Amino acid sequence: MATVTTFPKAANLVWHHHQVTRADRAAQKAQQPCIIWLTGLSGAGKSTLANALESALIQNGHHSYILDGDNIRHGLNKDLGFSARDRVENIRRIGEVAKLLVDAGLIAVTAFISPFRADREMVRKLVAPGDFIEIYVKASIEVCEQRDPKGLYAKARAGLIKEFTGIDSPYEAPESPELVIDTAEIPLQQSTAKILDYLVSSGRIRA
Amino acid sequence: MATVTTFPKAANLVWHHHQVTRADRAAQKAQQPCIIWLTGLSGAGKSTLANALESALIQNGHHSYILDGDNIRHGLNKDLGFSARDRVENIRRIGEVAKLLVDAGLIAVTAFISPFRADREMVRKLVAPGDFIEIYVKASIEVCEQRDPKGLYAKARAGLIKEFTGIDSPYEAPESPELVIDTAEIPLQQSTAKILDYLVSSGRIRA
Repeated sequence: MATVTTFPKAANLVWHHHQVTRADRAAQKAQQPCIIWLTGLSGAGKSTLANALESALIQNGHHSYILDGDNIRHGLNKDLGFSARDRVENIRRIGEVAKLLVDAGLIAVTAFISPFRADREMVRKLVAPGDFIEIYVKASIEVCEQRDPKGLYAKARAGLIKEFTGIDSPYEAPESPELVIDTAEIPLQQSTAKILDYLVSSGRIRA
Repeated sequence: MATVTTFPKAANLVWHHHQVTRADRAAQKAQQPCIIWLTGLSGAGKSTLANALESALIQNGHHSYILDGDNIRHGLNKDLGFSARDRVENIRRIGEVAKLLVDAGLIAVTAFISPFRADREMVRKLVAPGDFIEIYVKASIEVCEQRDPKGLYAKARAGLIKEFTGIDSPYEAPESPELVIDTAEIPLQQSTAKILDYLVSSGRIRA
């Protein structure tokens, strides 16, 4: 899968110098780059799905990268809080970085609640039509609250976290997402396969 | 070079689900990811060198991506101006994105004046020792002003641009960069080969 390259002696290297384009990087990786934008409540299963998807993609020779709270909130967006303005800026920056990853030839997978339609539409408009694949990771608030993997719902109910999505801040479900994955109904492997099938049928990865 | 993959039928796909790591992504790309940070005056040749380097890397099967004014100032950092505070934030965000690219397995090449030592050191500390390769793209202010490819020095001399690096704002040359490339002395192909040699000798790409 990996290519072993040889620089006979770099000082003697001859190459054709031209500007490398998105198309060159995409062709090198044998895929059509895109943003797979997972949206849904906390506990709906976005990170689990993102990781299973990346695992399947990489094992099949594709090149992807996940943006999530772990690598964004403590790095690029560590200056942002949770005010309305900062939440918009949070999603804007994630969208811009995902766009750079697409330009770099990668399949970018994002796993953020991203509760507001307007913010998601802003990201959709950043890239070419078809490059933004919105996936609604669907699970009822009851299911998510019962799972509560990080104990956040308990804290929100206790008033320790304010403006928590689904409790005292709204979640605006996508109106026409490219896919809906109901994680309370469909097992993980089948959910992942559904996304892979979509990527194949839309020409993003090889059939 | 590119891998043609087959999903016999994604719905029947079996894969081993595990968390994909930086090491997995780097191994897939047969390289040790790093940040190649080009710093120098406007007109010193950073973008030209970055493009020649990426061209050579990609043609030899490596995976890289350039961050520069074109894709950062109009996107991720379009909310930033040129105040002292915004200049620091500009470099911080570029460093954080370069770090994400490294985690994604890529060789990140950055081409920004980045005139202040403290800002460059901040980025160096974001990543593991050795992952930040600082290259001083050296050319005298006289040479750069004579080249003036974008007409910026003329505007700065006319007072139309304030706090222009090298004119009325300082450039702090690196004290111990990994490499120095004197673009007034060394032709482009030789400069590129020098960087490739460094990447080979430091184990970033295959010899």
